[in-house]
Amino acid sequence: MDDVGYMTIALELAALGRGHTSPNPMVGAVVVDPNGRVVGKGFHEAVGKPHAEVMALQEAGAMANGATLYVTLEPCNHYGRTPPCTEAILTAGITRVVVAASDPNPDVAGGGSAYLENNGIGVTVGVCAPEARKLNEAFNKYIVTKTPFVVVKCAATLDGRIATRSGDSKWVSGEASRRFVHTLRHELDAIMVGIGTVVADDPSLTARMDAGDGKDPVRIILDTHLSISAEATLLHLDSTAETVVVCGFSVSDDKIARIRKEGVRVVTMESEKGLILLRPLMARLGKMGITSILIEGGSRIIGSAFREQIVDKLLFFFAPRILGGNDGTPICNGPGPELMKDAIRLRDLRVHRFGNDLMIEGYVD
Amino acid sequence: MDDVGYMTIALELAALGRGHTSPNPMVGAVVVDPNGRVVGKGFHEAVGKPHAEVMALQEAGAMANGATLYVTLEPCNHYGRTPPCTEAILTAGITRVVVAASDPNPDVAGGGSAYLENNGIGVTVGVCAPEARKLNEAFNKYIVTKTPFVVVKCAATLDGRIATRSGDSKWVSGEASRRFVHTLRHELDAIMVGIGTVVADDPSLTARMDAGDGKDPVRIILDTHLSISAEATLLHLDSTAETVVVCGFSVSDDKIARIRKEGVRVVTMESEKGLILLRPLMARLGKMGITSILIEGGSRIIGSAFREQIVDKLLFFFAPRILGGNDGTPICNGPGPELMKDAIRLRDLRVHRFGNDLMIEGYVD
Repeated sequence: MDDVGYMTIALELAALGRGHTSPNPMVGAVVVDPNGRVVGKGFHEAVGKPHAEVMALQEAGAMANGATLYVTLEPCNHYGRTPPCTEAILTAGITRVVVAASDPNPDVAGGGSAYLENNGIGVTVGVCAPEARKLNEAFNKYIVTKTPFVVVKCAATLDGRIATRSGDSKWVSGEASRRFVHTLRHELDAIMVGIGTVVADDPSLTARMDAGDGKDPVRIILDTHLSISAEATLLHLDSTAETVVVCGFSVSDDKIARIRKEGVRVVTMESEKGLILLRPLMARLGKMGITSILIEGGSRIIGSAFREQIVDKLLFFFAPRILGGNDGTPICNGPGPELMKDAIRLRDLRVHRFGNDLMIEGYVD
Repeated sequence: MDDVGYMTIALELAALGRGHTSPNPMVGAVVVDPNGRVVGKGFHEAVGKPHAEVMALQEAGAMANGATLYVTLEPCNHYGRTPPCTEAILTAGITRVVVAASDPNPDVAGGGSAYLENNGIGVTVGVCAPEARKLNEAFNKYIVTKTPFVVVKCAATLDGRIATRSGDSKWVSGEASRRFVHTLRHELDAIMVGIGTVVADDPSLTARMDAGDGKDPVRIILDTHLSISAEATLLHLDSTAETVVVCGFSVSDDKIARIRKEGVRVVTMESEKGLILLRPLMARLGKMGITSILIEGGSRIIGSAFREQIVDKLLFFFAPRILGGNDGTPICNGPGPELMKDAIRLRDLRVHRFGNDLMIEGYVD
């Protein structure tokens, strides 16, 4: 097996931490002895748990001496929650380190690799780098900007409607798509919806996973006038994650106190034309430690998110259906640009299939 | 090579007639001698030209004696513009015939095969049948229903807008997509647009092909009140195909005579709420010998076409762009259903790429 083969194993290991490592990145590591045998495997299981390198080196034990370490992210060279991995690598007697992606933090990028090289270890960087960077796309943005990585998800008919004129959206998309959305909720730190969606669907927004290890996301509700009903399911959940209601500055302290009494967090934020401004909100949520957000609608929030340019990635599910009219709910609401050349540009479109649905993945350019 | 291999060659030959055979189907044929050598190839080049079987048998000459004939469509067993191919096959000494698809006309389906079998020839039917049926999907519908096979094409942003609020649609889609649309126009008998599109874009709707062998489609303009300008480019084309303007019954004879003077055909048709009724129009166009129509918009016609259930196939181009608002032109205009379960269902979704655009192909269920 070559470098790419071993790194692919390390990437698969890294992905096992999906949904549990935030605010840390997912990392996987493999120790390979001079005969090409895998003698140690590890991944970062969860925040507070050992780093992938340390786990793999421990499994390898004495066999790490003279071996090669494959790791999906440049080993840390500083004291954080754990001692620097570079020291553990030197101590274990590793002679070569293969890295997929450099540290995304420009302040420390290359530091771990340089330290290892200065200590006589052969270092190769960039094997499977695109895959490794995609794996931690949320972390990579947050660590640099301190604002969350924002994913917009919607489920629409092929003619671009997320609900009929009566508001009916059950079910635009199929069972397989809805299952995937639950794994998404598990992966991202928070999920955000508008009060319109809360009123229409009274959702619980929890991560109902097949495997039962679903970690609930923080639930963020945009509710400019704080009109949420005290009976809303979202305010009475048995969940490990908190619910955050965001309202405008004009809401009275009394009203805020009443909702806070239900055990949820209320955050006040600037608004314009009745809509919470999303740019300052993202900065605020970033400060609260939220590294990634899934925006699930409705169309007013999705429109605002694109117009305020806070979107990093989109996941549009298209069902094999056509409504055939313009009176249903569109994907985006609000004012659009006058000219097509001023449309938001997307890159790296990829198509996935969930049952009979198509999911189009793309990134804002 | 096996039956599928030879039939694949025959299918590729058949496709060489694309755009030239209407109202006949595309057909390809290959003669293979007992040593597995291809000794004759043929395809139906154009209406009035010899059938594929005859062309392949002529090329094979004496080598057809004892050979196998692969043909993409069941050989005809009746006198039409040409004598029956079954007779030519017997005369040539063919001992086995492999057919992809049976004749789609239920009145004669199986007749050719049965006649050959009754004359001692081994017949195999159904090799590559799905591919063969798809190749002639337009012909297959028309021959049975006598109404055209209807394809709806649009180019939209990923949030479902075909133009901005100012009507700007240049360019939603990329160069590669637009080139493909020109080959589509060459393949279908007619192209249909609404007067709104004519007013907005003043299009010529001709088939500008790279190869220069583009056959212009019949141009059909839906114009309920016959408000088309006498200066519209569409009325003054140097084209081998005619322009048909469809207006409502309420338009005065004077007005109709004035437009007819420009050398175009004017057809009057029932309308409702200002929109030409498309079901009776399809029956009328079918009687005029139009076997297939490409509807290119705008959104009112696309909406009507889906609601009146005349659509067989859709080709939706999606550009890697987002408008982010609801004030642009939607894909479909008009009233939609109240419940999602009453949406039009699509089947066999397939995704193609043209440059950075995605094209979603589907069929109405």
